Amino acid sequence: MSAAVQRRWVIADRPLGRELRDADFRLETLPVVEPGEGEVRVRTLWLGFDPSQKGFMENVASYAAATSVGAAMPGTGVGRIVASRSRRFEVGALVVGELGWQEEPVVAEDKLAPVRTDLPASLALGALGMTGRTAYFGLLHVGQPRAGDTLVVTGAAGAVGSVVGQLGKLAGCRVIGIAGGAQKCARLTGELGFDAAIDYKPGKLRARLREHCPNGIDVLFDNVGGATLNDCLGRVATGARVVICGGISRYNADPRKPEQLPPGPQNYFNVVFTRATITGFLVHHFAEHYATADRRLGEWVAAGRLRQLEDVLEGFENAPRALMRIFSGENQGKQLLRLPEAASPGGD
Amino acid sequence: MSAAVQRRWVIADRPLGRELRDADFRLETLPVVEPGEGEVRVRTLWLGFDPSQKGFMENVASYAAATSVGAAMPGTGVGRIVASRSRRFEVGALVVGELGWQEEPVVAEDKLAPVRTDLPASLALGALGMTGRTAYFGLLHVGQPRAGDTLVVTGAAGAVGSVVGQLGKLAGCRVIGIAGGAQKCARLTGELGFDAAIDYKPGKLRARLREHCPNGIDVLFDNVGGATLNDCLGRVATGARVVICGGISRYNADPRKPEQLPPGPQNYFNVVFTRATITGFLVHHFAEHYATADRRLGEWVAAGRLRQLEDVLEGFENAPRALMRIFSGENQGKQLLRLPEAASPGGD
Repeated sequence: MSAAVQRRWVIADRPLGRELRDADFRLETLPVVEPGEGEVRVRTLWLGFDPSQKGFMENVASYAAATSVGAAMPGTGVGRIVASRSRRFEVGALVVGELGWQEEPVVAEDKLAPVRTDLPASLALGALGMTGRTAYFGLLHVGQPRAGDTLVVTGAAGAVGSVVGQLGKLAGCRVIGIAGGAQKCARLTGELGFDAAIDYKPGKLRARLREHCPNGIDVLFDNVGGATLNDCLGRVATGARVVICGGISRYNADPRKPEQLPPGPQNYFNVVFTRATITGFLVHHFAEHYATADRRLGEWVAAGRLRQLEDVLEGFENAPRALMRIFSGENQGKQLLRLPEAASPGGD
Repeated sequence: MSAAVQRRWVIADRPLGRELRDADFRLETLPVVEPGEGEVRVRTLWLGFDPSQKGFMENVASYAAATSVGAAMPGTGVGRIVASRSRRFEVGALVVGELGWQEEPVVAEDKLAPVRTDLPASLALGALGMTGRTAYFGLLHVGQPRAGDTLVVTGAAGAVGSVVGQLGKLAGCRVIGIAGGAQKCARLTGELGFDAAIDYKPGKLRARLREHCPNGIDVLFDNVGGATLNDCLGRVATGARVVICGGISRYNADPRKPEQLPPGPQNYFNVVFTRATITGFLVHHFAEHYATADRRLGEWVAAGRLRQLEDVLEGFENAPRALMRIFSGENQGKQLLRLPEAASPGGD
């Protein structure tokens, strides 16, 4: 049975040119409604968080459709179907898709995909979801690693980075992760099989890169930008592939105000001497290959060769906090929020 | 007959972190010597100038072998053989190669190549020399233009840029050149067949790029770096190829002091949204394909489909001045120095 009311988070302000704050979000109570033809109502069980969500709030055109202040906060989630007028999905089925930050959204059936029930459901938001696909295409299609290559991953303890490093090991690379803090670094080498991890926080990144990459970096997978990217570009090998996936150092700048952005990488010019390539991508550029990626990622996870590092917060009221953790670098692996199966009383 | 003495320029100081100045060069008088076995003596008739020569003087490792203060100034030239102990070259033959800034150097035969006599000899230092090869490989191999593409060339009135734009027309592109000053721009469209030219000096480059590239830039060939590169990166189309060939805006910085370099391009991150590629190269990366490039460039020049824009100074004493013109942007096309056929008296 559903509760008569439910909660959702709406965008209360645009975080342009600054960090996220509590007042950017407003918690609303609204009625639970019945699905129409071809729709289902979903009980949200997990929400996944991603840096691009701050871009959605800023209404930056490049990543996604426009959002407006007062609109529901977008977000990908896993949920269980609690009411169905769909021929595709029965009540009780687990699904993944754009649920938004809402306890019991009504969603069109064609916006949802089934979730494997033989593996933990949270994987559908990480290693077996868009995060895993991003790592897969960015590393294997764009980065084109060769066995024996030295792969450096920045933001290596993040959702995408932690998968990229493991895929690099599967592809026969020596994998060096760069992350912030000794604890993150220990998890990369201890739990995920990275060959080495560099904590950028004490500084001396260039010296550490020289030490760990004596023959240079063959593939650089960058989630960070700024000084970290620049230092890595100073160390690329001949013929290196530099994959630009994200730029967490840029997310607090107002995209309309270039003076707020961190400087671009001065060492871009090293591509001349090394004939290296710097390439970017968005995961949807590879949509035609999703089925292959999903099958392979699923096989590696099922075989225990690919693990999901995840960071779980509890309770619907903590959704903004969960998103903020990504920008403060608190999260280790995929940032998730877990919600109870039981119906919430709603409101307060 | 050769003069008993000749002149050469030597490196008197390293121009690290600053513009070139007269005191960086010293003119010396030295005896004319006879060639040894397998060597020839060459009367230098043309010298060609290139931004990388400042790098040689700075002893920057990336471009070339080390040079020292007091050593002869390196440089490529065309000359006539005036004495020969080579089976390959007879007296009177025209050759091209590393002659240095010297009136009658003795050179090993394997460091020289013959010059076509059916075309002006100065082409061997420009469109039919390393300049032409650089344009050919950078545009056609790295940039991979497709017919119908919009090609933007920065430093378009320079030696390489002026060839790149013409090759772009041969490849079926719409070609937009960026250059400094109305006169340079007029030559690009009037003499070289560019579709349009943008004078960057009055500013508003971004607005001019929007106007001339309504569907974005498909291939960007950059010789400049700095703000020009950044503005162009803000306008790249989906799947664009960005070729980094040179960075004239960087040449007065001390390469050991990153704080002197112009900022890197903040807009590098646009490659994420456009899956564009930024790639560098040095011409010697394509050495195995020189014969093909030389043949094609020669055919295009002979057919009148490729013209050399050249800027000729006269007199050996003006060699430093000729090099300085490249960094002040005074040159239009390939900067050359012409020397007399007759033997110079040498010294003063």
